[in-house]
Parts: sequence; structure tokens; C-alpha cells
Amino acid sequence: MTFAPLFVPEEIREAVSDRAWLAAMLDFERALAAAEAAEGVIPTAAGGAIAEACAPDGYDVDALAEQGRAVGNPAEPLVRALRERVGGEAAGFVHWGATSQDVTDTAAMLVAQRALERVLAELAAVADGLAALAEEHRSTPMVGRTLLQHAAPTTFGVVAAGWLVAAHEARARLADVASERLAVQLGGAVGTLSVLGSDGERVLARVAEELALAEPVLPWHANRTRIAELGAALAECAGVLDRIALDLALLAQTDVGEVREAAGGGSSTLPHKQNPVGSVLVRASARLVAAYSGVLTGGLAQEHERGAAGWQAEWEALSGALAHTGGAAHTLAVTLAGLEVDVDRMRRNLDATGGLVLSEGVAFALAPTLGRERAHELVREVALTAGRSGRTFREELVADGRVELTDVDLEDLLDPARHLGPAEALVDRALAFHRSGAA
Amino acid sequence: MTFAPLFVPEEIREAVSDRAWLAAMLDFERALAAAEAAEGVIPTAAGGAIAEACAPDGYDVDALAEQGRAVGNPAEPLVRALRERVGGEAAGFVHWGATSQDVTDTAAMLVAQRALERVLAELAAVADGLAALAEEHRSTPMVGRTLLQHAAPTTFGVVAAGWLVAAHEARARLADVASERLAVQLGGAVGTLSVLGSDGERVLARVAEELALAEPVLPWHANRTRIAELGAALAECAGVLDRIALDLALLAQTDVGEVREAAGGGSSTLPHKQNPVGSVLVRASARLVAAYSGVLTGGLAQEHERGAAGWQAEWEALSGALAHTGGAAHTLAVTLAGLEVDVDRMRRNLDATGGLVLSEGVAFALAPTLGRERAHELVREVALTAGRSGRTFREELVADGRVELTDVDLEDLLDPARHLGPAEALVDRALAFHRSGAA
Amino acid sequence: MTFAPLFVPEEIREAVSDRAWLAAMLDFERALAAAEAAEGVIPTAAGGAIAEACAPDGYDVDALAEQGRAVGNPAEPLVRALRERVGGEAAGFVHWGATSQDVTDTAAMLVAQRALERVLAELAAVADGLAALAEEHRSTPMVGRTLLQHAAPTTFGVVAAGWLVAAHEARARLADVASERLAVQLGGAVGTLSVLGSDGERVLARVAEELALAEPVLPWHANRTRIAELGAALAECAGVLDRIALDLALLAQTDVGEVREAAGGGSSTLPHKQNPVGSVLVRASARLVAAYSGVLTGGLAQEHERGAAGWQAEWEALSGALAHTGGAAHTLAVTLAGLEVDVDRMRRNLDATGGLVLSEGVAFALAPTLGRERAHELVREVALTAGRSGRTFREELVADGRVELTDVDLEDLLDPARHLGPAEALVDRALAFHRSGAA
Amino acid sequence: MTFAPLFVPEEIREAVSDRAWLAAMLDFERALAAAEAAEGVIPTAAGGAIAEACAPDGYDVDALAEQGRAVGNPAEPLVRALRERVGGEAAGFVHWGATSQDVTDTAAMLVAQRALERVLAELAAVADGLAALAEEHRSTPMVGRTLLQHAAPTTFGVVAAGWLVAAHEARARLADVASERLAVQLGGAVGTLSVLGSDGERVLARVAEELALAEPVLPWHANRTRIAELGAALAECAGVLDRIALDLALLAQTDVGEVREAAGGGSSTLPHKQNPVGSVLVRASARLVAAYSGVLTGGLAQEHERGAAGWQAEWEALSGALAHTGGAAHTLAVTLAGLEVDVDRMRRNLDATGGLVLSEGVAFALAPTLGRERAHELVREVALTAGRSGRTFREELVADGRVELTDVDLEDLLDPARHLGPAEALVDRALAFHRSGAA
Repeated sequence: MTFAPLFVPEEIREAVSDRAWLAAMLDFERALAAAEAAEGVIPTAAGGAIAEACAPDGYDVDALAEQGRAVGNPAEPLVRALRERVGGEAAGFVHWGATSQDVTDTAAMLVAQRALERVLAELAAVADGLAALAEEHRSTPMVGRTLLQHAAPTTFGVVAAGWLVAAHEARARLADVASERLAVQLGGAVGTLSVLGSDGERVLARVAEELALAEPVLPWHANRTRIAELGAALAECAGVLDRIALDLALLAQTDVGEVREAAGGGSSTLPHKQNPVGSVLVRASARLVAAYSGVLTGGLAQEHERGAAGWQAEWEALSGALAHTGGAAHTLAVTLAGLEVDVDRMRRNLDATGGLVLSEGVAFALAPTLGRERAHELVREVALTAGRSGRTFREELVADGRVELTDVDLEDLLDPARHLGPAEALVDRALAFHRSGAA
Repeated sequence: MTFAPLFVPEEIREAVSDRAWLAAMLDFERALAAAEAAEGVIPTAAGGAIAEACAPDGYDVDALAEQGRAVGNPAEPLVRALRERVGGEAAGFVHWGATSQDVTDTAAMLVAQRALERVLAELAAVADGLAALAEEHRSTPMVGRTLLQHAAPTTFGVVAAGWLVAAHEARARLADVASERLAVQLGGAVGTLSVLGSDGERVLARVAEELALAEPVLPWHANRTRIAELGAALAECAGVLDRIALDLALLAQTDVGEVREAAGGGSSTLPHKQNPVGSVLVRASARLVAAYSGVLTGGLAQEHERGAAGWQAEWEALSGALAHTGGAAHTLAVTLAGLEVDVDRMRRNLDATGGLVLSEGVAFALAPTLGRERAHELVREVALTAGRSGRTFREELVADGRVELTDVDLEDLLDPARHLGPAEALVDRALAFHRSGAA
Repeated sequence: MTFAPLFVPEEIREAVSDRAWLAAMLDFERALAAAEAAEGVIPTAAGGAIAEACAPDGYDVDALAEQGRAVGNPAEPLVRALRERVGGEAAGFVHWGATSQDVTDTAAMLVAQRALERVLAELAAVADGLAALAEEHRSTPMVGRTLLQHAAPTTFGVVAAGWLVAAHEARARLADVASERLAVQLGGAVGTLSVLGSDGERVLARVAEELALAEPVLPWHANRTRIAELGAALAECAGVLDRIALDLALLAQTDVGEVREAAGGGSSTLPHKQNPVGSVLVRASARLVAAYSGVLTGGLAQEHERGAAGWQAEWEALSGALAHTGGAAHTLAVTLAGLEVDVDRMRRNLDATGGLVLSEGVAFALAPTLGRERAHELVREVALTAGRSGRTFREELVADGRVELTDVDLEDLLDPARHLGPAEALVDRALAFHRSGAA
Repeated sequence: MTFAPLFVPEEIREAVSDRAWLAAMLDFERALAAAEAAEGVIPTAAGGAIAEACAPDGYDVDALAEQGRAVGNPAEPLVRALRERVGGEAAGFVHWGATSQDVTDTAAMLVAQRALERVLAELAAVADGLAALAEEHRSTPMVGRTLLQHAAPTTFGVVAAGWLVAAHEARARLADVASERLAVQLGGAVGTLSVLGSDGERVLARVAEELALAEPVLPWHANRTRIAELGAALAECAGVLDRIALDLALLAQTDVGEVREAAGGGSSTLPHKQNPVGSVLVRASARLVAAYSGVLTGGLAQEHERGAAGWQAEWEALSGALAHTGGAAHTLAVTLAGLEVDVDRMRRNLDATGGLVLSEGVAFALAPTLGRERAHELVREVALTAGRSGRTFREELVADGRVELTDVDLEDLLDPARHLGPAEALVDRALAFHRSGAA
């Protein structure tokens, strides 16, 4: 992860570091020994000795990975090192009935579980920030933009509410995956729990319990739906963060100026620049999450009882996807917390076209007399003239002899506040949705 | 879709065809008019006239798409054509309060809903086929393979059960998306339902009901979580189908010969070839689904109130993802139904290494006397010798003076049937899971 | 391709249609027979009879694809149909020494070759359009934007020149692939040309010549570098078109208004909208090209002597990538041809921040007296004040007691025309590059 | 990069490390100052002082990245730190006329240049290893496999030659990108070289020369074709390595046994396992390269004069793509160097179907008497019977009354050595191609 501190806070980087993976692998071995001791599969004393040796201090994870080149994974060297540390008779009971993939897969789930706690908290902070914006700007009029053009009036409350619903939906999906799909892996050589025999199912259940992971229906060495769903859920979150950051960056354009990032980034050469740095970092992380997620969802087709590439490619991709989703969420939460909203500029932009964005209403008002098609056509002509003449839409309407509307009508038709429809009700729906989900 | 009939059955191709999209767009306009008439927003007579004109016959979808070049979507020309057909006063009430994206988005949901019915049925057929295999081969021993090497004994029942659980999980996710995430789109110009005013929420609810789609919290023009989740769920299904097809193709290798596709494909030059054609077609479709799904999940970052690219790219990607997931499921279901399983060959392959795949058990048996490390090492040496000498593992064991095991011990240790652990229980777990899910 | 006419002109759609593939497959069979007749491998009469039967009329490509389900490709049924049509003794010489993949791979190259002719022509039109803009606006000042913020003055000529260089580089790469990497495929069953024996190399060379394709070093059934490079080159072109369209859409924002698409798209509800429809369609196509290209570059890992999925997935992806690259290029060429550039608005936008974008120069001017750091800091402070006070940067500079610059100095420092550096020379470099490449 | 030492040798990891990026950024500042001093843009003494301060020791790259959060890139804090270290008057001339992106982009090119030296060397080692295999096994018969089925005889020489041509083509493309497309970046704030004025072009040329990078036609801040082509070329290399590793893993299957990795990986539980560890690691790295490359090619659409996400996402992706391509090449080169080829097993596998793979020749031999269709059909029937009866194809042929071929004919027809066509000539073509390219 080049320049990682730029994108991801230390705590989240730490949660997906090689050290974190090592600790999680040792947690698996400890929990396995504990479960087997409890079920009488291995001696109680062995369980204790193994637990003691599973403290991560003193293991050199880089060296273990280096040794792993010979076997294709870091678990086998770790198990050897662990056996050595345990020593004596108990050493023979280390990793009893398990296979290397049991170690790394369970570790992947634990790393995910722990990192997701942070990621979900950051996403909750994003949602809270959005809810606060929606609430505060419930009635702040601004221009709605479609295909990057001024279209019709909306409120910043509705805009923020739209972001909020998306953030909520994406976070809810990730939370579901976190609570339902993170499962222990334990299957032995080919996923039949053969060494454990009739104790297998009980040991499996107990290890799951020990580690607060779900118990799978079957060992899932070559069934990567859990990983794929996790990858997809992270990509969905990152995509939603990306969208919000995109909108912020667009609204922060010098030419728009409706929002500004408090900690606007300076420039090495341009003293006046107030770059939307947070949004940019969020968007960059989102691209990386999409790529990592593609590796995770692309790994579904693994061969026979253990994959010969897909599995091994997951480690880096999982760490990267977790880190950058968390980083993006963190950065966006901070950005939202400090966001400056320029309500006056919103209003000025809304009025910039002199009522043009309200042409839809004018066309509707003219439809009864002129027919819908002709009304639409007439308004379109006036709008185009206004676009080119420099006069406002309203001025052109008045100037055009064909438009028979009173001043009062026009006042009414060209007042944005009267064309917001149920905007406030929509904000309330979003806030209620947010609150129910947060419950 | 080049050579589409190769990959996708006609019924599914039809369900995502331009004609199907046209019909769905007209369904939206009909439902909107009906809802607005019912709510008193437009005259009852207009609702009736519009409904009548919404029969898809007589619209030229290619011409509409061609006309759409000028505006960037096919809905606008369709609305114009519909207004023309409706004629009279009622024409003015066509598309009342809606925007083009309301039409295409709701159409996308309807196309998905209808195609998914078929796709889910095909996936159910796949699961049933897998359940039948798991049941029939509950106790059929075969060699388990990890990293493409013989590893240890398993049963074909466990293998099929593993496929089954994966198929089930992926189908369950897709079914969830189908039932919970397909929602009507109705927001008007910028998603505030402005034209409909205080009737907006009621009309929204009623259109959703009319079309048997969910009612969204907010209009979701620029919030594409629904589309992204649909794309991800399709990719997950396709990935699982891909995995099963990969395993089938590997098991069908001339060098393995454990399964054979009944309708084994001939070759234009090689009279004897029995190609795993079904598996190949499934895998090819799966690659395309992954690509289309990437477009769908990659479209989350849409600008402001309506996207300027992401939205428009979804149409082809959605059709393609649905078609190829359905095609792959159909082809795999047919392949499974006709699959020939060569139980004898499975047994011969299991025995091919002369007990080598049972070396794990031998090492365990020697561990109490030799210590785990030395036992593992000794067995590894014997295994390597056997791999090179041409003698079987058992022969080498007997020949090696250091192994103190009786003939009876060896018989026992090298009988695959005794090393299957709780394999049958695992099959039962998978079948129970299947049945519960199918309920 | 849902709503294909929206995105891709008919001629290009036709060039990648199933009919075009059929014609190309028959071209291969005809060329093969001709080459083999010329080399004395098959009777001259057979060559003639086969050539005659290779007219595409009368073959039903949908039916052939449907029949292809049984064998996994459309070539085998086509060869059968061709043999039937040839009849008599000559029928036995149809497809002599070739395999199905020889047919579809060579057809892929021919389809690409023919479609690329159009695609490259459209890309040349794009480059010409950009060159014209660069030339015309060689000295048109506008504000340069970085991270979506006003940064410093540039010219529209430099901006267009930047687009031009990118378009040129991408087109050059695609042209290279077209001229060097499209090769005939002929290898027989496993790529050894076994049936042709010692005639093999000569027949290979002659078929290549017949079809104006390169002669490969070896048959490349499982070596897909050609396909991958074609996919990557198409994606590069589409990516560059995407970039230009993105900039156009951003410059066409109502809030920016520096360019406008002549054929600005209307809206089904908003009479005044002038959507950047061309840019939007280009960007949508580019997303699809990226996805299709991923399938093509993702197909490098094919098994043994013929792939069991990667090959078969290429057909749809290749057609789609060619079509949408061509469609995007066509649409952008048309858009550029009709682009309205608002030179006044460019100037107004450049001045909108009251000289703020020239703060870099002011800081440089103050550096000798204040030191670089303090000068930068002072200017930054003034700039921030100006950003918030409503006064212009110049006004704030004058108001700030610390800035000791004369009016003449300020005039000079805040005149954009004096801060363009070698902008015109850069435009000339780009135009010279364009002309040399077009030669 | 989780467990990076598993996949990538230390030297290559080091070449893309944050330290390497830091050194490259400082190299840019040093070269810029030197060029500007040489051109008289800054004082000679300043050039010297800056050069001295550009030694990378003493800079804390993690701290710089952390500080970069506020501005969105690591260059700005580095420039500040550099100015501080230079001190005095010369400090004001640090980074003269450059912008942050000039620093990171040129650094990216330098990091790529240096890493590619290693990557290309590893790829050359791969090609040499393949050439040695092709040469040694020029006449080693083996069965060719299509769609994972035995198809017809080939030689291991042809197989290795096929890998060789692919490796060569991919490496040649990467070498072209390395020598032609790595260019210096220098444009200043918005790419006009404004601060440097009429010196701009000369300084640009000189910095390029200093750093042995190409001089671009224009600054390319928002034109990412170079990055995209580099990404695509890396992905092509990784894809070819992936293909070779896939074939090795398939040939190393216990069921095939035609090759074996010398350093066959052990297993934590299975003493006998000889896993194709090298191939697996290569394939895992290739998946990651594809993902990183997607970020690089996906970054073409950057906004205006400097991108607001695409640029920033490149750093991690570029490092990752370089590292894993290099890692995969290294691992494959080592794997090939130690590859054990089992010539006997190849022969046994070729004969395993009792001549079935020669059915094509038998059909050809029968065609003159029976007609091609009937001959093909008859042979297919016999082949199927042989497949099921347990008797060999030859035995079935003899048993079938309809086949009128003498024993001598059969001997001839069923001798693989007589059905290799110009296989040796093909190997020679590939070797000549290799030698010419290596020249």
C-alpha cells in the first residue's frame, strides 16, 4: 500500500496488517486446541500449553511468509514454529485435525470481523453526518442537477437525504454480511473433518463459539461465497462513499461553490487553492476497493477441495478492500463533519438562470390553453432564447407575446419554494429510515 | 450478444430483449396513469385511454432507440410516440409528473423481475440436480484433490454437497435481492415528486403496488445500490456455477474420467472427442456475467440528481448479466441431469497412488512412538520413494524397516472407507440445508 | 446490446453482427481451400467448388449457433452445412486440416480488421476535430482547473491540444495492433498442422496472404496475446474518448457554460434542458468497452492446446468492445464537429475570482522581499479573505497593507495573458505531432 | 501487501517501496534544479545546494504521507521538508516552476523504470527457461489436450514453444513501453510551464535527459495513456505467466503427472503432497496484477488539468502491479529451472486411450472408400465403444467388421510419431523468434 497513511488511519491499517493476520492465525490454533481439549479430543494439558504459546509476541511474520514460499502459504511455517514453541508431548496436538487453509481462512474471517467493527463505525459516522446535514438543510433550496445541467429546484436536505439512504443501504448490507456470513473454517485435509471423526461436528461448533464466528453447514475451502459477498458489500459501501465524494467535489467546484471542505487542501504552488482533498482521497480509495473486491468476487471458481490460486490471491485483496473502505469512510466522516455549506451561493446558483429551471411548471401552466406539446415547445423556444440573449427566462417570457400569464401567475410559477413538491416529507422519510436502521 | 443462441435459451433471451424493455416501459406508463387516475391526479378517462395505448404492438423499438440518440435515452421518444397514439386531451396526461429515468429505471426493475423468475427457476434446477447427486453418491468414495493433487479420500457425496451449499447460498442471495430490492422508480425531474405535490407519496405507493415492486424510501435516480446489489448477486451465482463447471471439466478430463457429460460435444476434426461442452459454455457465460456485473457495481458513483454515463451504461450490462446467468444456470442444470458418474474410475483413481493419500493416517499412527515430527518426516520420505520407484506406498511402507506396523494395522490405515470422518453426516447437513431453503 | 442504435451507428453494428462473423468464417474456409488447392494439397476443382459454396447467403446463423450448443462453437455446424452445400467429392476437402478454432479465431481477426477500419476512421475524425479546436483556440484564454478548482490561466488551445495528444497516442496504439497483431489462425487439432504435414507452413503462409492477415510464428490457439492487446488498445481508445467527453460534460455544466453541444438533448419533462447528450453516450459506451476489454485481457490463461471457456467468452466481448469503441468515437466526432465554444464565458470564468488564479505569480513577485514561505503564506491569507469577503483578490491585495506592489505591477501580475508561459508553443508541438502521425 | 514475501522477492519489493518512491521524488527535484541551473533559470549555487539536500536519508516517508492527508499527496510535504533542509536563499528555488503532480508522476516513471529492469530480467529468464525446455523436448511426444480432453499427439517441445512465443510477445510489449513510454512529467500548475516561460521547453528536455526518461510532446497530467499502456503491458505479461503456470499445474496433477515442481511444496497435514507451489503463487500474483492494472487503465478519464481521484489511486496500483508481475516472473523462472519432466509418463498418457487420439488419421484414411461423413461417423462409433468397453481403440477397430485396413496400415495410422506434422519445424520457428528477440 504505497503512501498508505495518506488514505487509511493507523488503527485500520493495523487491523489488517500482517501482525493482525498472525494474531488471528494464532487465535485459531488456540481456539482449536481449547475446543478439542474441551471435547476430550486432545489432553487438557496440551490445550493449555498450546494456548500459552499462541501469544503473538516473538513470531516473525515476515520470516514466516518468506518460509511460506516453499509451501505456498504462511500457515504451515507458523504451525511448525508453534509446535516448536509448545514443545514436548503437547506439540503433537498442535493443529490437530486441521489443515493450513483452516488457519488462513479462519484468520481471514477474524481479521475481517475486527476490521469491520471499525469500518462499520466509520460508516455509521458518515450516516450520522449525512443525517445532520439533511436535518439542518431540510428546507434549504438549491438547484437540482441532472446530466450535470441545472434541472429544477430541490433542497440540500433532499440531496443529503439521498446520500443518507444510499449510505444506509450499503452499510446495512455490510453489517448483514458481518453478522451472518463470517464463519469459522475447519475441515481438515479435504474438508471431511476426517481426523476428528465423530467428534468433528462438535469441535466445529465449539471453535465457532470460541471465536464468535458462525458455524458453517459444511467446511467451505472451495466455496467462496462468503468471501465474494464480503467483497461485494465492501465495494458497495466504497461505491456509495465514492458517489457522495463525487457530488461534494462537484458542488465544491470554484464554478459552483455550494460546499467547501473545512480542511481544504493547499497546493505546492497555488496559494489560493482550496482543494476538496477529503473527497479526492475517498474517491481514490474507492477505486482500489473496487479492484480488490473484483479479486474477491473473482475467486469463486476454485478447484476441487482447495483452490490453486484463487485462495492465495485473497489475502492481499481482503486486507486492501477492508483498509480502503475504512479509510474512505473515515475520511468522508471527517469531511462531512467539517463541511461548510454556502446557503447563499446555493440560492444564487438556483436563480442564476433567471427561472429557467422552473420552465417545467410554466409549460404545465400553459398546457390547458395551448395543449401540452405546443406549450412545451413554446417554453423550450423561450428558454433557448434566454440562454443566448443574456436576458433572464422571466424577461423573455414577458417579452414573448404568446405567453398569456399574469404577473401574479409568473411570480408563483417562478418561485422555487413552490415547486419543491413533497421535498420535506421525503427528508423525513429518509431520517426515519436512518433512525430505524440505527436502532 | 454474438452467437447468443449458443449460450442462452430463447425464453431468457426474449425476457431481456429490447422488446421486453419496451413492454416494461409501457407497463410503467400504464401503471402510472392508472395510479394517478385512482388518486384523482388525472382524469379517469385519461387513465383508460393511456392504458389502451400501452399495448406494445406497433411500437418500433429500434426506431425509438435511434431517435433516442438525440436525447440520450429511449424513454423520451417512446413518451412522444405514446402521446401521439393516445391523442386528444388525454395525451396531455401521459407520463404526468414523471421523468425519462423513471421510465427506464422502472423498466429495468420489471425486466429484472421477469427474467429473474426464469433465472431463479434454473438455479433451483441446478440445486435439485446437485442434491440428487449428493444423495445418490452419499457413500461413493473418491479422492479429494487440493491444489490439483490427490490429497485424501472423500466421497462424491461430499463434493456434490459442497457444490450444493454454494449454489444454495448464491441463489438465496439473488432471491433476496429479487424480493426485497426491486423497487419502482418515480421521482420526476429531480427526484422530489414536485409535479405531484402532496399526492406524490400516495401515487408512488400505488404505482409500486400496481407493478408488484417495492416502494423505495426515496426516489433513487442517483442511488444505484439496488442495481449494484443485483449485479453482485448475479455475479455470485455465475461464479458458483463457474466453480461447479470447472470441477466438472476437471473431473471429465481424459486423465481423470470420473464424470462425463451425456451430450459430450463432438469435434469438427476429432471423431473420438467427448468434450465437456456444457461446462465450457457455463464458464464462458460466467466470465461475461462478471464483466457485466462490474459495470453495474461500477455505476454507483452517479452525479447529482441523475448520472451522466453510469445510468445509461446499465441497460446493456443488466440485460447481459441476466441473460448469461440464466443461460449458465440452464446449461448446468441440463448438464447435471445427464451427468454420467463413473464410480469405478473414482475408486481406481483413489487407489492409483497405492494408499499414498492415506499417508496422513499412517503418520498419525506412528506419532505416539516416533513423535509427530519424525513420523511425518518418515512418511514423507516413504511417500516420495513410492512416487518415484513405481512401487505402491503400501509396498514401500512394508519395505521400510523403520515402520513398525502390523498387516492388520496397515489394512486398516490404508482403507479409504475408514478415513472419511463424518462425511455422511456432512452430506446430510447439506441436504437438510437445501430442503429448508427450498421450503 | 440493449438499445444498440442509441450508442452505435448501424454500419459498425453491422460490422460486428453475427452475419459479419458468418461471412468471416466462410472467408476462412474459402481462403483455406484456395491455399490448399494452390499448394496441391487438395484438388483444384475442390477449391473452386468450396469457394462457390462460401457465399454467405442462405446460411442461417441463428440456427447454426443453436446447433453449436451441442459442440460448444458455431464453426462445427457451419462446416457441416458447408460440406452439405458443396456436396460430391469436393465436400471431403472442406475444412481440410483445420479445426473449429481455426475458423472462429480467423473470423475474429477478420471481423476485427474490418470493424477497425471504421473505428480508426472515426478516431481520426475525432483527432481532426480536436486539432481544429486547438488551432482555432490557440490563444483563447480560459481558466485551468485542477482537482476541479480554478487553478491558473491556460488556453482552450492547450486544453484541446492535450486531448489531441491523448487521442493520437491511443489511436496510434490501436493502429499498430491492427496492422501488426491481427494474424491468421491455422493449426489443426492441437496446433501442429499435423494433417498438412510438410505442406503446413506453406499453406499457413498462403492463407495469411489470401486474407491480408499476418502469419504467426506458431498457431496461437491458447496464446491469446493478440486478443489481449487488441482488447487493451480498444480500452485505451475508449478511455481517452471517455476523458474528453468527461471534460466536455464538465465544461458544459450550467455552472460553467464554456462549451455547449450543438445537438443538445432535450428532456421529456424539462423544456429548457440542453443536455450534453453526446458526451454522455460516449461515456456510457466507454464503460462497456472497459468491461468487454477485461474479458479479452482476462482470457490469457487458456488451458493446454485449446481453452475451455476463455476462448468461447471472447466472441461477445470482442464484438461489444469493437462496437462501443466505434460508437463512442463516432458520437464524439459528431459532438466535436458541432461544439459551440463560448469564448466570452471562458473569459468571464477566468476573471470570476478577481485574479485569484494568478496568486501564484503574485507570490513569486513577493518572494524576493518576503522570502518564499512568507510570500506564499501572505498570498494564501489574502486569497482566503477574498474567497469569503466577496471582494476580489485584487481588491484584497490592495487593501492588505503588507503587499508593496505598484498598480502597474499588479496590472501586470493579474493579467492572465502574461501568465500563459509557452502555451502557444505547446499547441504547436501537439499539432506537429498530430500532423506527423496522420501522415 | 499481505504476506508479501510469499509472492515477491525482496529486491523487487524494495524497488516499489515507499522508500523507493521517496528517492524517486527527490531525484526529480534534484534533476529539476540541475536543469534549471544549467539553463540559467535558477542560480548555480542553488542547484548545488538542492542536489545535496536530495539525498533520501533523513526523510521520514511515513510522516510525509501522513502530512499529505491535508493536501492529498505526499509531494507537497516533501517539498516543504526539502526547502527546510536546503535553507537560506536557495530554498526559494526548490521545486521552481513545478507542481506536486510533476513530482509524483516523474517519480512513478522512475519507480517503474527501475522496477522494470528487474521485471524484464525475470521475464527474460522465463523465456530462456522455456526455450531450453522447447529445445530439449523438441521431439518428446505427448498428448495434446483441447477442452481438457486428449485430442491428438503433439510434442512437449511444441507446447513449450507455444509458451515461449507468448512470453516473448508479452515481454516485447512491456519492453517497448519501458523504452518508449516512460516520460518525465513537468508542466507546472496547469500544464503550461507558465512559470518557466520561454525556458520551459528547454528545461523540460534537459530534465528528461537528466533522468533518462522520454520528453513528452505535452505535459500529461490528465493524459494517462502512458500509465494505461504500462498497466496493460504488465497485465499481459502476468496473464501469460498465469497461462504457463496453469498448464504446469494441470500437467502436474497427480492424475497426469507429466511434470513436477522440484521444490514441490509440502503440506501441513499431508506428508506425501507435492504441490505445484510455484505455479500457484504465480497464478495468485497474476490475479492481483489484473486488478491493479484495471485501476491503471481505468484511470484514463481524469478531470480537466489534474484528476480528482484517478491520479491518486495510481500509486498503490502501480507498485502492486510491478511487484506482482516481477514476483510472478521470478517464481516462474525458478520453477522452470527446476522443472522435472516425466517423459515416460507423457508417453504412457499418450497411449492411454489405445490410439484413440489418432482417430482423426484413421477417419482420413477411411474417407476415400467410405466418404468423409461416414468415415467420421464410423470412427466416432468405434471410439465411443472403446471408451466404454475397456478395450483399446485399436482392438475395437480390428473387431469392427466395417474397417478394412491392414495391420500395416493400422500400425502406421496409430503411431503418434507419424502424426506430428511439422512439429519440429514449429519448434525451430519459435526458437528463432526467441533468439531474434533476445538479440
